[in-house]
Amino acid sequence: MDETHNGDTWFDIPPGSEFGVANLPFGVYSRTEDGPRKIGVAIGDSVLDVAAIAAAEGEDFAPLLAAEVLNPLLAAGRPTWRAVRERITTWLRDPAHRPMVLAHRLDRAGLHLHLPFEVADYVDFYASEHHARNVGSIFRPDSAALPPNWKHLPIGYHGRAGTVVASGQPVVRPCGQRKQTGEDAPSFGATRKLDIEAEVGFVVGTPSAFGEPVPIERFADHVFGVCLVNDWSARDIQAWEYVPLGPFLGKSFATSVSPWVVPLDALGHARLPSPPQDPAPPSYLMPDADWGLDIAMEVRLNGHVISRPPFGSMYWSAAQQLAHMTVNGASLRTGDFYASGTVSGPEPDERGSLLELTWDATEPLLLGDGTHRAYLNDGDVVTISASAPGPAGTRIGFGEVTGQVLPATA
Amino acid sequence: MDETHNGDTWFDIPPGSEFGVANLPFGVYSRTEDGPRKIGVAIGDSVLDVAAIAAAEGEDFAPLLAAEVLNPLLAAGRPTWRAVRERITTWLRDPAHRPMVLAHRLDRAGLHLHLPFEVADYVDFYASEHHARNVGSIFRPDSAALPPNWKHLPIGYHGRAGTVVASGQPVVRPCGQRKQTGEDAPSFGATRKLDIEAEVGFVVGTPSAFGEPVPIERFADHVFGVCLVNDWSARDIQAWEYVPLGPFLGKSFATSVSPWVVPLDALGHARLPSPPQDPAPPSYLMPDADWGLDIAMEVRLNGHVISRPPFGSMYWSAAQQLAHMTVNGASLRTGDFYASGTVSGPEPDERGSLLELTWDATEPLLLGDGTHRAYLNDGDVVTISASAPGPAGTRIGFGEVTGQVLPATA
Repeated sequence: MDETHNGDTWFDIPPGSEFGVANLPFGVYSRTEDGPRKIGVAIGDSVLDVAAIAAAEGEDFAPLLAAEVLNPLLAAGRPTWRAVRERITTWLRDPAHRPMVLAHRLDRAGLHLHLPFEVADYVDFYASEHHARNVGSIFRPDSAALPPNWKHLPIGYHGRAGTVVASGQPVVRPCGQRKQTGEDAPSFGATRKLDIEAEVGFVVGTPSAFGEPVPIERFADHVFGVCLVNDWSARDIQAWEYVPLGPFLGKSFATSVSPWVVPLDALGHARLPSPPQDPAPPSYLMPDADWGLDIAMEVRLNGHVISRPPFGSMYWSAAQQLAHMTVNGASLRTGDFYASGTVSGPEPDERGSLLELTWDATEPLLLGDGTHRAYLNDGDVVTISASAPGPAGTRIGFGEVTGQVLPATA
Repeated sequence: MDETHNGDTWFDIPPGSEFGVANLPFGVYSRTEDGPRKIGVAIGDSVLDVAAIAAAEGEDFAPLLAAEVLNPLLAAGRPTWRAVRERITTWLRDPAHRPMVLAHRLDRAGLHLHLPFEVADYVDFYASEHHARNVGSIFRPDSAALPPNWKHLPIGYHGRAGTVVASGQPVVRPCGQRKQTGEDAPSFGATRKLDIEAEVGFVVGTPSAFGEPVPIERFADHVFGVCLVNDWSARDIQAWEYVPLGPFLGKSFATSVSPWVVPLDALGHARLPSPPQDPAPPSYLMPDADWGLDIAMEVRLNGHVISRPPFGSMYWSAAQQLAHMTVNGASLRTGDFYASGTVSGPEPDERGSLLELTWDATEPLLLGDGTHRAYLNDGDVVTISASAPGPAGTRIGFGEVTGQVLPATA
């Protein structure tokens, strides 16, 4: 794992920046909203046009960066990801590269950021024990909070890849069939329980063969990096539809993703053991390495912090999720994307959804502006940000995923 | 709706062929397994290299056919689909085109057929009341056979698009966690209950905007055509994992698709009313036209017919499914694909899965070769074929989707 920190560069990085030379997340930007899209790497308050620099420097990998999405780079595999990261680090350390790098530097503030990769399949897990217990208690008060399978396997389901959208994309309040407690029949209309789920997402680069499981120890060979996810949820639609085949329209209207994909290689200082697992998982889920990640998340509603979910508390790791997702021989494609499920810690102010934070609207939140929220109002803006430990006391920033609620159109 | 039949052509079509001039399904073929892929149209025992013919004839739409998948054609929308279909019909009716067409004719038997389109999102519904009642009775014997929401909305869930495979692709018996009735804890291993589901699939061409529902009357503007689906299922894995978020590994290892996409425009004579719906569906699901389809399906196991599911008995139509899938504003992409769910008729020999045909292995099937089957054995070959009424007493063939079970690798 590299031991660089923000000081190991000639590049002008503001003090305390979470985008130091040990981070180097990849994204896709344009100078105007509809202008040509380019791959960029965030550093300090800047973005580097890495395709232009790589081409000018004659790097072998330059064609992989001359794309409008990260997918060609993702498909190239870990040895290439490492080589690209090393070269970019060298550009930023060795002053000989300074003129070339500065010639292709842009202010981050002025850029439009896009969905950084083309999503193949999207899977959403359910890996926080605190979240699963809370949801079970709310949705199924007459049953055990955790389903019988919960501690045996990381429960997950496929979501809609086509509605994974970039941070900043407004989200229209969805309509659908809802049935309130006590109502005899469902009614149609705009959701009355629009919610968020604060999650962490994992971007698959290296594909795998049809019919061949990916062993847990190959996690880092296949997963390129990590970003933040807001899995928007319509709780009343979901509650009515989800038995027996799972969530569908309650989730499929939108899933927002942060614009910067932080490479797994930037998270060496964030790795930690997952919580103890009892019963012991079957061998295909037995960890060979620590893939818990000490990511500190923060959820803001109209600027007011409403939660600080700790990703390190997740019961199932992303490595276990990848092994589970493929143990039946399901193949991976470049651009596959899977999210952790809502991140909720043990404390009430560490819950990653309004469902839990307000206990299904029975305990509304008081925001810093004096207003209350049970679920989201039209016009509300939700922003999830996060950072993780980097080298030498620095932080590795994930940036943020944000989105505003627009009124229903029906 | 066009009124052509097999006689309206100079082309040599064998008597009784289900690939007459009123069908004209689209697929993707190559002359050798790894050779270049081309778009073809099936006619009689032949395939037309329609890209070559269109180019030679100087057709405007020729570039749409010069692709390795149907997606560019699918994206072009219904007016173009109609124009292309009319021109191909003209080629086959007007003898002036005979030399050009015959110069680009291939024997179907010698060709390799591929997945005809790149799948965007894959959704699987649950639209047969007979199937839902059977499954409910088997899986949830202590509850009502139909969940409370079943008659209010077409239940569906997202499946894995990346493991939708072409007919002929062998399927490795998947491994996973299974818990048998009476066992205290799950065990890991190859599924003991490998099953099939005979379904009909719908291929979306025209995309829709994020946040905007697609009204039911726009069904035919968005859906290009129809093919056959085998939704392979591991019942023991599914039973253990599916509460509360739905099927995942029990389905995601493979979904097989027939190679020929029959245009919706070829199915005018197959349209019929769906069964009466009680309660009346909400207005967004209220049919404006008959989109039941009188498709006669046949399921063979190692060549022996085991079921003849009638698609006309489905409770929810494909038009209702499309309206439901998008009512929350979820956008459609070109290549989106959705399957009907298992097609089971009211009679025992009309059931579309072994789960139902053998009542979860309690009533094994006697095959024509004297062997019995509860679920699938390694080496078994399952083939689903179908046809629908065409003009003047002819049939519109869907061809078949087939696949062989290979032993588990773990």
